[in-house]
This record gives sequence, C-alpha cells and structure tokens, in this order.
Amino acid sequence: MKDIGKLFMEYTKYQYLGESDQQKGEPQPPLEKEYCEGEVIKLPKNFHKKEVTLNDVISSRRSLRKYSTVPLTLEELAYLLWNTQGVISKNEKATLRTVPSAGARHPFHTYLLINNVENIKGGLYRYNAISHTLVSFKLQEEIKEQMVAACLGQPFVGTSAVTFIWTVDIYRTSYRYGERAYRYVHLDAGHVCQNLYLAAEAIECGACAIAAFNDDLTNNLLDLDGENEFVIYLAAVGKKIKG
Amino acid sequence: MKDIGKLFMEYTKYQYLGESDQQKGEPQPPLEKEYCEGEVIKLPKNFHKKEVTLNDVISSRRSLRKYSTVPLTLEELAYLLWNTQGVISKNEKATLRTVPSAGARHPFHTYLLINNVENIKGGLYRYNAISHTLVSFKLQEEIKEQMVAACLGQPFVGTSAVTFIWTVDIYRTSYRYGERAYRYVHLDAGHVCQNLYLAAEAIECGACAIAAFNDDLTNNLLDLDGENEFVIYLAAVGKKIKG
Repeated sequence: MKDIGKLFMEYTKYQYLGESDQQKGEPQPPLEKEYCEGEVIKLPKNFHKKEVTLNDVISSRRSLRKYSTVPLTLEELAYLLWNTQGVISKNEKATLRTVPSAGARHPFHTYLLINNVENIKGGLYRYNAISHTLVSFKLQEEIKEQMVAACLGQPFVGTSAVTFIWTVDIYRTSYRYGERAYRYVHLDAGHVCQNLYLAAEAIECGACAIAAFNDDLTNNLLDLDGENEFVIYLAAVGKKIKG
Repeated sequence: MKDIGKLFMEYTKYQYLGESDQQKGEPQPPLEKEYCEGEVIKLPKNFHKKEVTLNDVISSRRSLRKYSTVPLTLEELAYLLWNTQGVISKNEKATLRTVPSAGARHPFHTYLLINNVENIKGGLYRYNAISHTLVSFKLQEEIKEQMVAACLGQPFVGTSAVTFIWTVDIYRTSYRYGERAYRYVHLDAGHVCQNLYLAAEAIECGACAIAAFNDDLTNNLLDLDGENEFVIYLAAVGKKIKG
C-alpha cells in the first residue's frame, strides 16, 4: 500500500476519529492481561542504590551491540524492569509507573529473552509489572536462535545478557483514543526504551534498541495474534566490555 | 478510513517495504534544514553541574500541568535543549546526539513556544541543534493563544515557561527505512521526550507531554507543509510550585 505512512498521519487526525469506546460508555479493559502459567520468580525492589547522576548517564550513553560475558544479576535485571515499567501505585482504573504513558493507559507487556542472567535458565519470560515478578514462558533451547532470526538475524539479540521485547495491548489505549492510539503507543514505547538505555548505563551495561524486526515471526514466538497484541519494540542489554 | 492503525502496522512490515532511496543510491538529505532568519541567541553549553541521580529523577517524575510563575533561566533552557537534541559530534553523514535515533537519522527539529524565560521575549523560536543556538521565528503576541488553540485548548501550553514542539523531517528517516520510518520517528520522539521529562526534573521543573493536538493548526503555525515536515509531539515545561 503506497504512502501508508502519509495516510496513517492523515487519518489519525482528530477530525477523523469519531467517538471512542470510552466515550460510548464501554467497560474499560483490564490493566494487565492474565498471568501466564509458569515458574514464578520474585524480583527484589530495594536496589543497591545507584548513585550515578542523570548528566553522566545521558552523556555516556551509546548504543551498544557487543557485550561482555559477565552475567547480569537478578537484582540488576529487576532494576531495569522497575525503571522501565515498575508500578508505583495502582487503583481500579490505572497504574502509575516509572514512565509516563498517554492517559496513564500503560498498554505494554514486557517479555524477556534471557541469555545470561545469574541463576536463571535461558529462555523467554514475561514480566508481570503489577506483582513485580517474572514468569517463565518458553524455555526450549531453540528459542534464542528463533528470536535472532525474527530480529532479521541481528546477532546481538543472541549475545545480549537479556533482550527486552515490548508488546502492546492496543485496546488499552484505543479504548480512549481510537485510531490515534497507534501513534501514542509508539511514542510511549520510546519513553520506556529511553529509561532502559539510561538505567542500563547506571549499572555498567549498554543497550541497543531494535525496531527492525519481522513482525509476524516475533508475534508468533510470543503467541500473539498480531492485531490485538503485537510486538512494538525491542532492546538488547548486556554488560560493557572492560578495558 | 476504518482500521487505519491496523493497516499501518500491516503495510509497514518488512515484506511490503521494497527498496529504500538509500538502497537505490539516491543522495542523502541534509542533516538539518536551513536556518530560518531571525535574531540568533547563543546558548551556554557548560552547565552548572546538576548532581541529581538517575534514580531520584525517575522516581520523582510526574506529569505536571501547573507551574510556578518563576521563569526559567537561559541556562536552564539550554540544559533542556542539550539533553533532548544536543549534538555531541557530527560528520558529513550523521550526528551523534544525547538521545538515540534509529540509524542515527535524527529527523527532528525543535521549536519552542517561549512564555516565561528570563531575558527572552515571548514567542516561537527554533533551536538549531548543530550550532546550539536559538533563532526567533514568530514573535507576534497572538501566537501563544494560537498554539493553545492548536493544542485543543489545553491551557498549560500557555501557562508553561516553555513548550517544546518537535517536528519531523520524515525523509531523513524514510530515505533509509521507507514507510517503516513512520513507526521509527514516533519511537524516537518518545526517546527525546523522556529525556526532557528527566532533565526537567533535574532543574526543579515538571513536564507534560502532549500528543493530543490539531495537526493542521500546529503545522500551519510553524509554516510546515504537514507531509514532508510535521509536528509529531509537544511537551510543556515549567518550574514546580514550591511548598
């Protein structure tokens, strides 16, 4: 479809939006999808205080695609998850998190491809933000190479300590904003990923965002239908190589 | 157009993209559009060191829509501009900035609606990232109310000390990525805005992102054609009210 980008920008203008499901009085969707079955790993919340300044991490951040073989600790992984999607408070209608989201809709779920985290078997996991826990999702050995292939063969997905995979439950945002939600979820995903870049820097890691991926393959690997929920962005993280 | 969001996600998949202009060997677009005429204001780069930690700013950040009447200093404004689009280094093909951007394309221009910055007349300005200068663009008194109206009447655009208005030169990114660029520029704009949120927090300001705006009105105010260059995101900033 030619000029799909221009058409998208045009038809997500306010004059075309019509009444949203929220305006129609439809019930609001749940804050988080049901937890998947699997082994539950509790995550720490009281992190060893990282004293790096904002200025230092903004200045030193670079996209990093080559990582040390030193594993991340579970505390460091928890720190990255907390700073990207951590739930500070919650009521029936919304969560307040460590990142901003249009209308506090927070439409994301975080999946992780874990390759090199202390005491955690490699594989795909899901972060349950509200309970601040990890749940194992797919632990087959071939999952890593499948994810690399789904990311168009970018090798650092496989050599990272962990690759974050953010999915969108689009109705969380379109319930309020209609088709313009497709703009907002991309903007919001950028907020999340920027916090990951900075938090990674604070623990001597580097990150590299990935927007070039095969949508169908990544969605299939996560058992997503690709319409109601789909992968929007990824980022690989690993320790910096010293010296 | 029904389901424009779904269509957009579908037809920006890799299988539909075809050859990009870069792959075709077309010349690459300039790094920055020509400077507009106007009064040039040099900005400081050696900021008074802000010693706040990353953890503190991520924890304390909240979207803020009510601001103190205390003005921002020029140094504080420069600090926000530097941390959102500052050019760390540059060669003929690309700039390296304080934020990541897909393929280091950095497709943004930053306009400012200045309402309350010390020693600066109110109005619209443009930030020239490469020279780290501000240039006055439109200083008519009515511009503030026009911008508030273009932002669907959200009053904090007018009561902010400054409102950032990010525009996209889409060809900077589509030259390499074709129609998928429209995803990337939204992701990238989220990166930029998150740094603004955090940098604002570091200077006792608060920010509020604005994705709900009238595209045609904002583009018209900035004399943009709305196709090659268009407003993608805004954020109001002002000092926190104390006590």
